[in-house]
Formats: sequence, structure tokens, C-alpha cells
Amino acid sequence: MIATKGYAALSAGEKLVEWDFERREIGPTDVQFDILYCGVCHSDLHQVRNDWFEGIFPMVPGHEIVGRVAQVGASVQKFKVGDLVGTGCMVDSCSSCASCRDGEEQYCERGNIQTYNGINIYTDGMPTYGGYSKTIVVKEEFVLRVPENLSLPGVAPLLCAGITTYSPLRRWNVGAGTKLAVLGLGGLGHMAVKFGVAFGAEVTVLSTSASKREDAKRLGAHNFIVTTDPAEFEAAKRSFDYILDTVSAAHDIAAYMGLLKTNGTHICVGVPAVPAAIPAFSLIMNRNSLAGSMIGGIAETQEMLDFCAAHNITSDVEVIDMAYIEEAYARMEKNDVKYRFVIDMATL
Amino acid sequence: MIATKGYAALSAGEKLVEWDFERREIGPTDVQFDILYCGVCHSDLHQVRNDWFEGIFPMVPGHEIVGRVAQVGASVQKFKVGDLVGTGCMVDSCSSCASCRDGEEQYCERGNIQTYNGINIYTDGMPTYGGYSKTIVVKEEFVLRVPENLSLPGVAPLLCAGITTYSPLRRWNVGAGTKLAVLGLGGLGHMAVKFGVAFGAEVTVLSTSASKREDAKRLGAHNFIVTTDPAEFEAAKRSFDYILDTVSAAHDIAAYMGLLKTNGTHICVGVPAVPAAIPAFSLIMNRNSLAGSMIGGIAETQEMLDFCAAHNITSDVEVIDMAYIEEAYARMEKNDVKYRFVIDMATL
Repeated sequence: MIATKGYAALSAGEKLVEWDFERREIGPTDVQFDILYCGVCHSDLHQVRNDWFEGIFPMVPGHEIVGRVAQVGASVQKFKVGDLVGTGCMVDSCSSCASCRDGEEQYCERGNIQTYNGINIYTDGMPTYGGYSKTIVVKEEFVLRVPENLSLPGVAPLLCAGITTYSPLRRWNVGAGTKLAVLGLGGLGHMAVKFGVAFGAEVTVLSTSASKREDAKRLGAHNFIVTTDPAEFEAAKRSFDYILDTVSAAHDIAAYMGLLKTNGTHICVGVPAVPAAIPAFSLIMNRNSLAGSMIGGIAETQEMLDFCAAHNITSDVEVIDMAYIEEAYARMEKNDVKYRFVIDMATL
Repeated sequence: MIATKGYAALSAGEKLVEWDFERREIGPTDVQFDILYCGVCHSDLHQVRNDWFEGIFPMVPGHEIVGRVAQVGASVQKFKVGDLVGTGCMVDSCSSCASCRDGEEQYCERGNIQTYNGINIYTDGMPTYGGYSKTIVVKEEFVLRVPENLSLPGVAPLLCAGITTYSPLRRWNVGAGTKLAVLGLGGLGHMAVKFGVAFGAEVTVLSTSASKREDAKRLGAHNFIVTTDPAEFEAAKRSFDYILDTVSAAHDIAAYMGLLKTNGTHICVGVPAVPAAIPAFSLIMNRNSLAGSMIGGIAETQEMLDFCAAHNITSDVEVIDMAYIEEAYARMEKNDVKYRFVIDMATL
């Protein structure tokens, strides 16, 4: 076993503390890499608090992980020691179901294995521990090549916030001639703006707060609508082909769907705790759709990283020390971050 | 003006009674046709009772109308006296918005004009009266050619129940290789089964009632699932590409969405009175969509009628006298009809 340390919640809702644990010895198809940076996702906070489901504790969060390869298994083909690599939200899947065969491991019918807070039923049956740690062992197929030309802290959030917004925009062919609204300007939303603009869409940020107007423009958005202004909201009705909804707080999705053109689609990537209330008329009157999307497959995540390298796209980040994590969580709950905290793992 | 008579609710919720009224004189682009049969749609009942919105009274319901041309305006090109024709849910639209230019008048941005319970803002500003009547005047563009080779009472419901199911199945390319579930086996559902089968899909009927099994088979369905049987429901999980949801009563749409494969779509054509409760996980976990669809455009309705003529498809109907309408409504509320009441207008 490989001794390492991380920051863990020892039980649900507790503050994170330093914790010594072990990674499995690398097998023939495994890659071990030393973690340089790890992004802090809002879902980390939800999971250490058991907001969604009963978690596995101690829990080492973190699924936006970049680092350099320290060791490779005998059969590993794609990576060598010293390579810059990353891992996102998944570390394994069944590899044989229709979704896995289609390269959409995130929708694995037997269940993909989350990078942390999961049990790897396909290998050793042990809990998975995430990227708030010094080193990690991951199956080669779930390791991504990280381009050398990008600022490394800004790459980490691409592995979750990046692919979560890139994948649906690609899936629904958002590009030139498309009017895209991005609902919410946080970790996910700011990436959605960057990708939407890079793909050639006309991008409008929808926000409850006028204070984000300048930042939206700086990120490349073409338009900005304060959704709490009834006149602005009314004027925007039936004007968008797509709404990419990045909001995790409860909100009136049916009302936002009124901003869609005929045949428009509202795509959820955030996960509010309460179900959306959707009247049938919101769907049938203009043949609108309400859809969802979850991260992306491994091949698509690699495609996204390569696209970012070619277009010089990274996340806007605030780099923090490991010991700052509880303060970071508290600030994240107040949306006081532009736009992602990333832990410098040298500080652990 | 053209004197005629119909059956009308004189005010909301009242029983229908015989009522004398007038149709407009035909203009140069109008067609007058004498009504032979008119289908009875569940929405007739909702509208005479103001279930959805405040109606216009007296109200003459009926939007599944077939008959023979009695008179044509001077500029009418497509029809001559004696032709078999029909009119569905719409009698006008703005004709200039993007939806109308795309032949999707049902999504007209300024609003299409309903065949009854509407005000025709594009012509005379007068209320529209539907097909429970002896004769009707309709703008040429909203008159459909009715094939001579089909049983006429069975054609009437094609103008609403038919196009309402045909259009989404075409829109979402349901055909060979598609696994289609039809939720609810009523006026809409039985047409969805016939079209799904004709398009080459593998069709499964989902019903709360095992009593519909034989009928589903007779209509051509390949499979039948009693949704109240937990084992059958569980076994059907993640197995359909599409669910066409024809149910107008409140039901747990999120639960049914669990029967969709990855990338599957649940399409609503019924209109429950209460909003659906949709958790984000129902959308994102398998990239499923919840969509809606409303009737179809005029060109597509003609295409549907021609398809029915070529494939000998009509609605299963029970022909009734006009005076039977209240009893028909009462039976319809108990789902006691296979599958559509159609009024023989000779009885008025």
C-alpha cells in the first residue's frame, strides 16, 4: 500500500482535518500521480454534509485533480513518469454496458465509480478517496492528459465545472447562430460563458444580481439580463434556443422556460434539493424541452482539455492553502468566489 | 351572415343545449363546409367547465370536424363544392412569425386562433364556434383535404388525437429500432399505438389497468406493462427510447422517466391540471429530457391524413347522436369509451 495524507471529514458535517490513509499498490493498468492542485466543487460541501445521500466516512473530497505521474503499472501505454495528468469525477465504470461502450461512462448502467465517496465494486471493493490529498492511484483509462501550455491551477476545475458545461453545449450543438442563455454566473456558469463564446454562440448571462454585469462582459458574454427586473425579463421572452441552467439553489424553472423560443431546451446541470414544478403548458405550448446533463465521458473530457489548450481557456480561480478549506466552504456558500477555489497541494 | 345551429354551453359548467347562431359570410379565401361528423375531445369537457382558463360563452365545442364543401370564396384554389374536407384545432394564425413561416402555426408567436373558444383577432374580431354544429366557415389555409377511402367517422378524431400523437413521433424520429412506450390507452394513446406500429417502432403500452392488455395487442402493440405491478415496473427500467405520455390526470412523471434509457425523452401530450414534480437527478443521471408537443402544423396534419389514407389508419370510434353528448361526457370521465365518441351531425 502507498501511505499518503489528505484532508478528510471524519464523519458527516464535521470540519475537515488532516488524515493519514493509504492508496492501493499500483496494478498493471494503474497510474499513480502526485497531486499539485485540486479544485473545490460545491458538491464537495454537499457530500461532506450528507445533503444528497448517506456518505462514506472518513471522506476525502475533491474531484478536480491535476498532478504529475509518479509511477505507472507494467501495462500502462499512454502515460510515463513526469507527465502532467488529471482526474475528474469518475475513476472507474463497468466498461461493458451500452453507455460505457459509447464512451459515456458517466451514464454507466451498472454505475460509475465516483472519485471519492464511492466503493469501487469493479476492483478492490474499497472506498474511494478524492483529491484533497498528496497522491492518488487511478486506472489508466480514467486518467486524462493535461496540456502543458495552460496555467495549472486554472486547469483543475475543467475536470468537473469545465466538462459539466462543455458536454451539454456540444451535445446540443450550441454554436454559431445559437442564442444561449447561461443561468447563474458561478463556477459552472463562468465556464459555460467561456465555452459558449468559444463555440460562436450569442451568449446572454441571466443573473438575479446586477453586480455581475461587468464580470459577465469581461468573460465574453454578449448580453446580460437582470432576471429580477420584470421589464427585462418580459422583454427576453421567447428569445433563446437554449438555457444552460447552472443554479443549484431552488428556482422557478418553468418561469425561465418562458424565455425559450419554440423548440428551445432548458438544460439543467445544477442540482437543486427540491424538485422543479413543471406545468404541462410550459412544455407543450412551444414544444420546449427540459433536459439534464452530468459531467461528460472520458474521451469527451480529453477533447475538452485539448480544446482548452487550443483556445487558451481555463477557469478563473483563487488559489488557497489546504488549511483554508473551511473558510473557503463558508465563502462558497455566500457565492463569494470568482469563480473557483483551487487548493495548492504543496501546502498540505 | 349564414344562419346555423349547434350545441352550446350557454355559460361555464352548464349542460349543452341546442343553440341558433350565425357564421360569417364567406370571404374570397374562405371555405364553407357542412359538417358530417365531429369528434368529442376531452378538452371539450375541460373548456366548457373552465378547467384551464376563463372561456367565452356561449361555447360551441368541437375541433375534430369533417364534412363536405358547400361554398367556396372567389379566390379559393384548393377546394371545390362537394370536396371532403376537415378542420382541426386551429382556424387561423398570424402567418408571418417564425413559427408560421416554418409551417408550425400551432406555435404561432402571436397566438393561433382556436377553432372554438377563441377570438379571431386576425379577421373579424368575433368569437369562434366549433364543430358541434351544422356548418362552418374556415379560411382555406386551415382546411384539410380528407381522403375518400377512409371511414369518415374514424377520420374526425385524426384532426386532434391523430395529429397530436403523429407530430411528436415524427419530430423525434420514432421508427424502426426505436423502443416506444405509450403511457395511457385512451383517445390519444390508441392513436399513438397505431402510428408507432406503422412507423416500425417496438411499441409497449404502459397502463395502470391490466384490463387493457388484449385491446393493446389488438391495436398492434408488441408489449404491455401493468405499471401498478412493482415487479413489471422495475423490470422495465432504463428500457425505452421514448415515452409518449397521453395521460391528463395527475401522475408521477419522474417515476416513469426512470423507464427511459440514457438519452431518452418523455414527451407529454396530455395536460394534467397540476405541475409535474421533477427532481434534477431525474434529468441529469441519464441525460433524459422531458418534452411536450401540441397538435401539429397544417402541412403536417395534411401529411398525417395522407399517411392514414395510405396505411388505412383511422380512430376507433363510437358514433353517437348529438343529444347523447352529456352522457358521452359522463362516460368519457370514466374512460368508458373505445376510443373516441364521434357525433353524427345528421342527428342535430
